[in-house]
Amino acid sequence: METNELKRLFNPESIAVIGATENKEKIGYIVFSYINESKCKVYPVNPKYKSINGVKCYTNLKEIENDIDLAVIVLPAEQTLEALQECVEKGVRFVIPIASNFSETGEEGKKREEKLKLIIKGTSTRVLGPNTLGIFVPNVVDTMFVVKDRCKRPPKGSIAFVSQSGATAACIMDSCSFWEIGFSAFVGLGNKADLNECDFIEYFNTDPSTNVIVLYLEGFADGKRFLNVAKASKKPIVLLMAGRSTSGSRAASSHTGAMATSSKIVDGVARQANITRVYGEEEMVDIALAYSKLGPTNGKSVAIITSAGGFGVISTDHIEEDFSLNLAQLSPQTMNKLKEVLPEFASVKNPIDITAVATNDMIDKTLHILKEEKNIDIVLVIVLFQSPGITEKLVDILVKHTKSIPLVTTVIGSELADMATKELIKNGVPSYFSTYRAARAIAKIMR
Amino acid sequence: METNELKRLFNPESIAVIGATENKEKIGYIVFSYINESKCKVYPVNPKYKSINGVKCYTNLKEIENDIDLAVIVLPAEQTLEALQECVEKGVRFVIPIASNFSETGEEGKKREEKLKLIIKGTSTRVLGPNTLGIFVPNVVDTMFVVKDRCKRPPKGSIAFVSQSGATAACIMDSCSFWEIGFSAFVGLGNKADLNECDFIEYFNTDPSTNVIVLYLEGFADGKRFLNVAKASKKPIVLLMAGRSTSGSRAASSHTGAMATSSKIVDGVARQANITRVYGEEEMVDIALAYSKLGPTNGKSVAIITSAGGFGVISTDHIEEDFSLNLAQLSPQTMNKLKEVLPEFASVKNPIDITAVATNDMIDKTLHILKEEKNIDIVLVIVLFQSPGITEKLVDILVKHTKSIPLVTTVIGSELADMATKELIKNGVPSYFSTYRAARAIAKIMR
Repeated sequence: METNELKRLFNPESIAVIGATENKEKIGYIVFSYINESKCKVYPVNPKYKSINGVKCYTNLKEIENDIDLAVIVLPAEQTLEALQECVEKGVRFVIPIASNFSETGEEGKKREEKLKLIIKGTSTRVLGPNTLGIFVPNVVDTMFVVKDRCKRPPKGSIAFVSQSGATAACIMDSCSFWEIGFSAFVGLGNKADLNECDFIEYFNTDPSTNVIVLYLEGFADGKRFLNVAKASKKPIVLLMAGRSTSGSRAASSHTGAMATSSKIVDGVARQANITRVYGEEEMVDIALAYSKLGPTNGKSVAIITSAGGFGVISTDHIEEDFSLNLAQLSPQTMNKLKEVLPEFASVKNPIDITAVATNDMIDKTLHILKEEKNIDIVLVIVLFQSPGITEKLVDILVKHTKSIPLVTTVIGSELADMATKELIKNGVPSYFSTYRAARAIAKIMR
Repeated sequence: METNELKRLFNPESIAVIGATENKEKIGYIVFSYINESKCKVYPVNPKYKSINGVKCYTNLKEIENDIDLAVIVLPAEQTLEALQECVEKGVRFVIPIASNFSETGEEGKKREEKLKLIIKGTSTRVLGPNTLGIFVPNVVDTMFVVKDRCKRPPKGSIAFVSQSGATAACIMDSCSFWEIGFSAFVGLGNKADLNECDFIEYFNTDPSTNVIVLYLEGFADGKRFLNVAKASKKPIVLLMAGRSTSGSRAASSHTGAMATSSKIVDGVARQANITRVYGEEEMVDIALAYSKLGPTNGKSVAIITSAGGFGVISTDHIEEDFSLNLAQLSPQTMNKLKEVLPEFASVKNPIDITAVATNDMIDKTLHILKEEKNIDIVLVIVLFQSPGITEKLVDILVKHTKSIPLVTTVIGSELADMATKELIKNGVPSYFSTYRAARAIAKIMR
């Protein structure tokens, strides 16, 4: 398969929903209605209906006169294979069988999945799944059967998220929607009977809207190929491989039927392919966010700006002691310039502590001065709205500066902190609620 | 000094504000007005005014006929010593000199602080500070000069927070107010010219409303005494000692004039005195929250309940691999009982994965069954509102169960997650936004 062929999967013009229904409680309705809300042409297929929500409904696939880019099968496992056979006959390019009860559940399921593989073997039809939520591309296509008012979709952005667990990924995206963390696409791998993570790493390397490829896996589909495609990846890869512990590996096997990969092997692969390995879902999103906004960043010298001395000390400890980065050494010229714009009792040595009299303007001027300093690779700004001189307008100032110097922020506080974090992220500045998480994100994207 | 004498500091009946003013822009007004809002009797002192906001104002301390429990001096450093002398003469028990420009800033400041010490030497007057925000006790007293609409105060709770950095502590409390994390008291140590962290560890051990003592320090005032009082503490102590790195220690010394203590020595003290050492402000609050709700917890066996398999695997990895705790082994009887109340395809082995069909009722029944299982010391519930069967009412169910079995929750999602987290914390269940933070909190409070 040409990698670029997957482009059609993420930009389908025509989608058949096999098993669409007008019963609003059912998955067959949810999937149909979300696709119907998109710009894609939708073809519901169900012999029971003439039309659903005013859209003409087809008795079977053959009846559809047009070509079908993607078919979503929302039928039970028992009826899925027959529908897939029809897709192959119709020449459908991509099929997403949603049903569970395949290889993840015992012998019968395994046999069923083998049959599924046989059906598509040698054909031009490719399968994502089974046992999957399918795909989501903001403003383009959404095959996820989780209801939107309970599970919000994230905005458009540059994170491509490939996950072996659908429910887990959906919850993570719901959380990201809250913080305005944007995605270029989501793929639920399901049982990986055909397409797997390797195909998507290759594809997202060709996708101009993707800056970082994020993987939640419970096992590799093909370790050797993974190593090769990951090595060849020009975009950063963030990998959360779950099942590191004995009990975790056992749980993963009963969850997705994943074969355990020893943590040491994963470490080896990560090292050889320059993958950023992470260990929890919060860390995964934190690092993805930093990569998506700033890309991999060169150097290891960090400048810190704070208006509360304690946070300067704590984040210096994280930067230097926990993540082995350097605190940027400021030149005497830089420090002299800072002295001119900051109060007398401010500390112009890095960490720069403006103290509680800090204003938006002082931070603006400080950033202007730091931009000219060659010893700095990235700046961590600790944003504290508790000082009366720091207002919402600081967000615009930081957004302006991030175009010329890589910025990461930590915002600590209540309502204003919440609001500013969302605005900062929306406008290109990775922002975190703790100095540790900010320092970790900085460390992981620096090479 | 009898430890219990400090009780008067945290429960003052009469407070003099020396340097009170009616200029709303000034610290002298902010401090006066917040104390005036409390139940304490306030005595503004300033020769310029007859009254402030309708409260009789005094020319000097001597004029006040009543005894004064606490005097807050909101005058510049240059005028502070004279005011302190008057406090000693009046027999004021506790004095909080707010001004900076003492030992933290060069030779002149150091001399001034030595004079301050001489003034109170041998008297019954004790000083908190100088260079401090003073104290805050919810619903009782608030001497902090940071404006409340920018820096909210946390609700009543059981965390006693003792901090060497005022601004940093204020920002942390603002953030805690947002999440309904409650405090029994806050103390800004300032320069520790007299009272220091040791006095407060002793005092909070006698304070029935305190469950956990949290310290942000940049150096020990008296290492030997610290070790002794910490060893004698019956309540858990959480310690964030900042300045671990070379640059951090240098920054701390210019921030609070703290003398660096090597991280190894701090580790030794922590080990000997059974202190929970933490390294960042988020971790500090996370662990304080868990202690404040659950206290130190015996055992090391954890049960996990989830409705998304991936989070079960990730948190199992954290519990077993990252924090060396045990995944509780469920007895066959327990698993059989679980099978009766959970769907056929649920996993009744720990981690218990109810899958996306989970309902409030299933979680309720699962907790009832787990309560009878002797192999479980604590339960981690992963709360996911993305499943239609999980609703806001789950919060009440969890709050009910936490009375009979220690519960920690991870809530991942958007608006509902935010709301539920606040409600859970408010009602006694430590709740976190990631599996890692929840697992870490569990690990640190288990002994």
